[in-house]
Amino acid sequence: MTPPAPVSLTAIPGIPDIQPGDDLATILATALEGAGLALADGDILCVAQKVVSKAEGCLIPYDSVTPSDRALQLAQELNKDPRKVEVVLRETRRILRAWRAPGAPEGVMICEHRLGFISANAGVDESNLGQRDAALTLPADPDASCRRLADALAAHFGARIGVVMTDTFGRPWRMGQVNVAIGLAGVPATIREQGNHDAWGRPLQVTEPALADEIAAASGLVVRKNARTPLVLLRGLDWRPDPASRATDIIRKQQEDQFR
Amino acid sequence: MTPPAPVSLTAIPGIPDIQPGDDLATILATALEGAGLALADGDILCVAQKVVSKAEGCLIPYDSVTPSDRALQLAQELNKDPRKVEVVLRETRRILRAWRAPGAPEGVMICEHRLGFISANAGVDESNLGQRDAALTLPADPDASCRRLADALAAHFGARIGVVMTDTFGRPWRMGQVNVAIGLAGVPATIREQGNHDAWGRPLQVTEPALADEIAAASGLVVRKNARTPLVLLRGLDWRPDPASRATDIIRKQQEDQFR
Repeated sequence: MTPPAPVSLTAIPGIPDIQPGDDLATILATALEGAGLALADGDILCVAQKVVSKAEGCLIPYDSVTPSDRALQLAQELNKDPRKVEVVLRETRRILRAWRAPGAPEGVMICEHRLGFISANAGVDESNLGQRDAALTLPADPDASCRRLADALAAHFGARIGVVMTDTFGRPWRMGQVNVAIGLAGVPATIREQGNHDAWGRPLQVTEPALADEIAAASGLVVRKNARTPLVLLRGLDWRPDPASRATDIIRKQQEDQFR
Repeated sequence: MTPPAPVSLTAIPGIPDIQPGDDLATILATALEGAGLALADGDILCVAQKVVSKAEGCLIPYDSVTPSDRALQLAQELNKDPRKVEVVLRETRRILRAWRAPGAPEGVMICEHRLGFISANAGVDESNLGQRDAALTLPADPDASCRRLADALAAHFGARIGVVMTDTFGRPWRMGQVNVAIGLAGVPATIREQGNHDAWGRPLQVTEPALADEIAAASGLVVRKNARTPLVLLRGLDWRPDPASRATDIIRKQQEDQFR
């Protein structure tokens, strides 16, 4: 018997260090073609937030940052760089928790980002920047960034594709980090199965697979931080495009969330 | 140029409804061979908790359950079946939250399972059981179940493999559910990258990819609840076996967790 068709995940090599103003869609298309790959209908590209932020000029040199009094106070409590704290605060709607564990060299800030995502440091990152005295924020509008990439790559390859922008988040209760979706074009945030039935006819009450986060987490399997592989091609997935999908659809409303 | 080798995810068809006492390893081996697949070194099998629980006889008929006073009280507050609540309480070390949203037909219990996992209803499930007046609990020792499956399948195919037992969990802050790892054989819970450096030489402070959960989430892409596909083959992943891995290594210690 022929084995069932698999879903495949491929890390695309050959993407250079990204600079502000770079035409990311063309760079990604070149990397795909350099790897012998042409996009086809139904393909989904996972793009790491970091390269999008870099192309969009979201790098903030610390010598341009003057910490507020609140940033100075938090930085002292948490033993963090006050300029980083200031950048985090500018991206933050609300701090859920800020604490420093006994013996930890540095504290943690769990923040609700201005777009609603909840993560450490509101997505502000200092690693893999190529310079030490700067921080990188999330793109201004990750869904719009994904839409631009999807449109440009769809035109380039003549194929209907989806794009998922990923970032790496920790989570409560479970160790380690997983990639999650923070921007979407075409790919639904979740699949609403309410009203469907299980294999024995029992109604599925609350089943709603978080498709975009499953895709993002899967992309993490082939991307490692020290390998400069910010682009993953997911091929063979059975999915239905949703032209109106937005990553913020993934965010649980505060009044439905008992863990804020 | 030859495209880079992908990681592939294949849902294995042809697995029958599982009965208590079934030899699950032989059933899975038969399904793999029926799909034209032989396991090879480095393959990872994702097995849905439900079939393991069924094979191990974790189905509890409600006519055998007498709800305690506490179960009766909670059931009334949450509009749940007191027999289900009783089964949940027997699996639960601690209830983190129990609430019924205004207008919701039924309430939610977020529980710390006796093994430490935090999820709705302590992993007790009523769907896809093939009978309506019963509930299915997690296996007694999911890591041991995975180890038995891994040993039997490794012997059958003459290959070193890993096994991940998956369950479907909701999570705070983000909508929908993702598959997570609740049992492991060979596959590390996380990859400790502390002490490594990013691509530009900056030390990675807290990077610890949750490998087992990434694998579990990826398996969700090819498994849909109404399709009876409890087995997924992950092939082509670059990973290092850890003979001592345990799914409970994924659980964040209470004193390090600000969201309990």
